[in-house]
Amino acid sequence: MGQNETEIPEATYEMLMSATYRALCEHGYDDLTMRDIAAEFDKSRPLIHYHYESKEDLLGAVFEWMVDRYEAVMLEEVDQDGSPREMLEAFIDVALEGPADPEFDHWAFFTALLEFRSRAHRNERIRRAVVESYTYTIDLIREILETGIEAGEFREVDVDATAHFLFLATDAIRIRYIINDAETALLQGRTALDELVLASLYSD
Amino acid sequence: MGQNETEIPEATYEMLMSATYRALCEHGYDDLTMRDIAAEFDKSRPLIHYHYESKEDLLGAVFEWMVDRYEAVMLEEVDQDGSPREMLEAFIDVALEGPADPEFDHWAFFTALLEFRSRAHRNERIRRAVVESYTYTIDLIREILETGIEAGEFREVDVDATAHFLFLATDAIRIRYIINDAETALLQGRTALDELVLASLYSD
Repeated sequence: MGQNETEIPEATYEMLMSATYRALCEHGYDDLTMRDIAAEFDKSRPLIHYHYESKEDLLGAVFEWMVDRYEAVMLEEVDQDGSPREMLEAFIDVALEGPADPEFDHWAFFTALLEFRSRAHRNERIRRAVVESYTYTIDLIREILETGIEAGEFREVDVDATAHFLFLATDAIRIRYIINDAETALLQGRTALDELVLASLYSD
Repeated sequence: MGQNETEIPEATYEMLMSATYRALCEHGYDDLTMRDIAAEFDKSRPLIHYHYESKEDLLGAVFEWMVDRYEAVMLEEVDQDGSPREMLEAFIDVALEGPADPEFDHWAFFTALLEFRSRAHRNERIRRAVVESYTYTIDLIREILETGIEAGEFREVDVDATAHFLFLATDAIRIRYIINDAETALLQGRTALDELVLASLYSD
C-alpha cells in the first residue's frame, strides 16, 4: 500500500481507478506506463504519485477495485428469488456470458483479471485480492448448493469440493474463450457442464 | 522468430533453452533480464543475441521448447496398455500430480506456463504455442474417450466438449494449487472430478 493511499478522497479514487482500468485494458499489464494512466486521468499526474508510489501500487489498488465491482455485479445477477437450480444456472450464465449491465465489459474484465492472476504467486497484494475474489464467488455457490441439497433438488455431494469445482470449471471455460476459440469455447463448455456436471448434481 | 534462430546448433539450442527456463523459473517473467539468462548459460552472451533478437524472441522459443518437452512426458505417462478408464485416470494423475520423472518439476513448469498464458492474447507466437499445447492434450483425451465409448466403458457423451472440459478442469485445479490452497486444491479437485464428472461419464 502506498504511503498516502488511505487518504485519497473517494471521488478522486473512483476517477483514478476507472482511468487506470481503462488504460490497462487498452495497453495490457506489460506495456502499461504511468503516462498511459495519466492520459486517461483528468487530474494532475503528481496527484497519482502522491497517493501511489509506483505503478505496482496503483495496479494492486485497481485490482482490488475491480474485484469489489465484480462481486457487486455477480451478487445482483444471482441473488434472486429463484429455486436453487435457477440460481445455479444464473451463476453459470453470468460466469460465462457476463452480467446484463451494459456498463460492465465482461471480456475486458476477465482479460485484465488473467493478467493479474498470473502475477499472484509473486505479488502478495494481488494474491490476496485473487483469493478474496475466489472466496466470494465460491461462498455464493456453496450457499446455493446447500440450499439445493436441503430442498432435495441436488444430490448430497461434497459441497466445498463442488463449489470450488464449479467456480474453477467456469473460469477455465472463460480462459479458453480469451485465448482461443471464442466461438466454440462457450458452447462446448456449456454442453460439458450440462452433460457431465449438472447431470450428476441434479437429483432427478 | 529471430533472424538467425533457425541456424542455432542443436546442442547450443538445448543448453540455451534449459538455461533460459531455469532463469525464468527463478526470476519470473516480469523481472527476468538477459543478464539473468546469460548467468545460467555457459557460452557467451553475444551468442544469445546472435540467435535471438530480443528477450521476447528468446522467451517465445523457450515456451515452444517447454511445450514440446511436456507433450513427450505426458504421452509417456498416459499411453499405456490399460483400459480406457485406466488411461483416463492416468491422465488425471499426471495432470494433477505431475509425471514420475524426477527431472521434471511439475509445479515450476505450470507456474511458468501460467505466466506465458497470460500473455497469449497479446503475443502471437505464445498464443500459437498455447493453442498447440491445448490441442495436443485434448486430442489425447479425445482418443481415450472414443475408445472408451466404443468399448462401452463410457457413456455416449459429446466427445469434443468432454475432452476440452476434462483438460480445462484439471488445468483450473492446477491454477488453484499455484495461487492458493496447495493442500486442498488437489484433494477437492479430485473429489469433484470423481463425484461429478467421472460418475456421470462411466457407464455403470
